[in-house]
Amino acid sequence: MTYHKAKKVVIIAEKMLTEKICDIIESSGARGYTVVPAGGKGAHHRHFTSERASVVDDFATVRIEVVVSDKAIAESIGNKVVEECFGNYSGIIYLEDVEILRPAKFSGEGD
Amino acid sequence: MTYHKAKKVVIIAEKMLTEKICDIIESSGARGYTVVPAGGKGAHHRHFTSERASVVDDFATVRIEVVVSDKAIAESIGNKVVEECFGNYSGIIYLEDVEILRPAKFSGEGD
Amino acid sequence: MTYHKAKKVVIIAEKMLTEKICDIIESSGARGYTVVPAGGKGAHHRHFTSERASVVDDFATVRIEVVVSDKAIAESIGNKVVEECFGNYSGIIYLEDVEILRPAKFSGEGD
Repeated sequence: MTYHKAKKVVIIAEKMLTEKICDIIESSGARGYTVVPAGGKGAHHRHFTSERASVVDDFATVRIEVVVSDKAIAESIGNKVVEECFGNYSGIIYLEDVEILRPAKFSGEGD
Repeated sequence: MTYHKAKKVVIIAEKMLTEKICDIIESSGARGYTVVPAGGKGAHHRHFTSERASVVDDFATVRIEVVVSDKAIAESIGNKVVEECFGNYSGIIYLEDVEILRPAKFSGEGD
Repeated sequence: MTYHKAKKVVIIAEKMLTEKICDIIESSGARGYTVVPAGGKGAHHRHFTSERASVVDDFATVRIEVVVSDKAIAESIGNKVVEECFGNYSGIIYLEDVEILRPAKFSGEGD
């Protein structure tokens, strides 16, 4: 099997933004995404906790990842999430290079 | 300390496939893996939800990651999971370049 | 918007080490981190399970990720966690290249 270059977008955001972010991802042409509940601390989490021990069990944030074949789509998702979701909320976004099998699974162009 | 090039394999699959995927990973020579419960939506999730809000709390999928020193092992894990697990089920796999400390922890060649 | 090169550090460790690792991250100059509960098996998990099926629901480990603008900070976090936390405990650390928006969010130099 052949591995193909693709881009992963990772978005760490407050849980309440999940639906809005999923809307942006779905309308971008991506065919799927994965959501993991997360805790944390810092500049990208509005939810500061004074007790350190609680960060592990505090799921006020989500970690959403989406893999797309096209770098331009990845950047567009990142830009839109920052512009439309992070004005009043904290959050971070980063892109990574990945290699995928079955690239048709990641674009809107059939299976 | 010195960082060494290695490959990470990420597998996002239906939860019921976890045991089969772990068998493939363990028999590949990898020395460990990490499993995180996940929700999501899309072409790589059989479990389509009509209600968006539920994707965060729906843990029908798992995100499994494994780091191996050898690119060929990473690709072999990817190939086998697609061939043996994804025939009747949806799921995605991607590889990433990583840098690791203590490479002996990631191969079968001692500590 | 412009994407900037940065480094991600991923630490997979026993849950009881979370507070100590968070101390190292916070004192490094990183402005935030994300913690996800995880299960798993292998050389990097002290908690070996004899029953495979339990790995998914066993959250004895955590997956901590932190993104920093500076490669030297990323390596320093990795080195310190290995030296100060992994002497008596198992765990793995790896670095990845990422591209970020809004780099000021990831350093200690203002917003």
